[in-house]
Amino acid sequence: MLKLYGFPSSNYVNMVQLALLEKGVPFEFVLTYPGQSPEFLAKSPRGKVPYLETPSGYLNESSVLLDYIEEATDGVPLLPKDPGEKARVRALMKQLELYIELPARSCYPEALFGAKCSEAIKVKARDELLSGFAALKRQAKFSPYLAGDSFTMADIVFLYSVELGVSVAKKLFGIDLLDGFPEASDLLQRLSGRPHVQSIAAQRAVEWPKFIAAVQAKYQVR
Amino acid sequence: MLKLYGFPSSNYVNMVQLALLEKGVPFEFVLTYPGQSPEFLAKSPRGKVPYLETPSGYLNESSVLLDYIEEATDGVPLLPKDPGEKARVRALMKQLELYIELPARSCYPEALFGAKCSEAIKVKARDELLSGFAALKRQAKFSPYLAGDSFTMADIVFLYSVELGVSVAKKLFGIDLLDGFPEASDLLQRLSGRPHVQSIAAQRAVEWPKFIAAVQAKYQVR
Repeated sequence: MLKLYGFPSSNYVNMVQLALLEKGVPFEFVLTYPGQSPEFLAKSPRGKVPYLETPSGYLNESSVLLDYIEEATDGVPLLPKDPGEKARVRALMKQLELYIELPARSCYPEALFGAKCSEAIKVKARDELLSGFAALKRQAKFSPYLAGDSFTMADIVFLYSVELGVSVAKKLFGIDLLDGFPEASDLLQRLSGRPHVQSIAAQRAVEWPKFIAAVQAKYQVR
Repeated sequence: MLKLYGFPSSNYVNMVQLALLEKGVPFEFVLTYPGQSPEFLAKSPRGKVPYLETPSGYLNESSVLLDYIEEATDGVPLLPKDPGEKARVRALMKQLELYIELPARSCYPEALFGAKCSEAIKVKARDELLSGFAALKRQAKFSPYLAGDSFTMADIVFLYSVELGVSVAKKLFGIDLLDGFPEASDLLQRLSGRPHVQSIAAQRAVEWPKFIAAVQAKYQVR
């Protein structure tokens, strides 16, 4: 059986866990935090989670795990079969990652952990988030799902990236990225009603305050 | 026939072009620079190159194009068939992108274009490049190619990301990222001897001085 290593407060872990649940693929969740020991780095070379234990050994990088789960397991398809249609879904996933998730992430120290980010990093993140949301408006279908009439991997990445991008922009820049973007608000709300999304949110809610406190303590020591 | 839109000084364009050439897939190269017109954004929603014109319409994001080319066209395979083996190659590609290409790119204004990057962005890029190269040492096989005995998409991303990461680290931080890493230097040298790599390098060499001068001029206006 596949084993997913990670912790419930990580949105990347949430993505892979939701994909497994939505596909109906059996797996074991192994509570694991990032590490830098030689043993850890042998399983995940950058010391990150999630990583996945599979019949082909340990695999890492969330987007790679999403592709692997789709290609190596059965269950509900979360990517189209046609290469062109698949590329459109993947392009949405990639844009969410590069232009929304990563800029939001660069501001975590200030948005979540009580530290300060430099002005240059915040200006860069703000510009990228605004461009990222503009691109999302152009590219996404919302008919009713992000890439069309079926729930896909792109909806999973959308849920866990946009949520964070929106909260960072509100907190640090006083910008509501969902303002004038009702399609995105509606989809977020519809996705949050899915049973597997709710079960992941419940696990996350339990861990979140402890997780934030632990990282804040680390930043204060620095 | 596929049409690849981009310009020869872009390392992302180089990656997609090399994949097409190495696979032996016929295509037309259409010289195109990034744009923000409505017509451009309809083809590439973030205004970037490369994008690809295909029987399924316009597709964008380099990593998505690499997957599409592999899945939708014939020719020499550049990814393994087995999902586990494919995931290992993709993990290498992803790590090269996130931990080497993107940090190096954040320093382009200073490393290439005669502008200044803030200290915070440089410190972040330096730390990420060092961690990225450490992870690459752990993960890559160099036997003799990055992911094993065959030339794959990972070698393509390696060539055009590591080259730039090394040059940024040398110029801005005085660090030689290839020092003590002969496997990487050897692979770069071996790859640079491939005929298609040489033809791309020749196109790039013609355009590069004009490209750099044009971007430098833009930065001076700001």
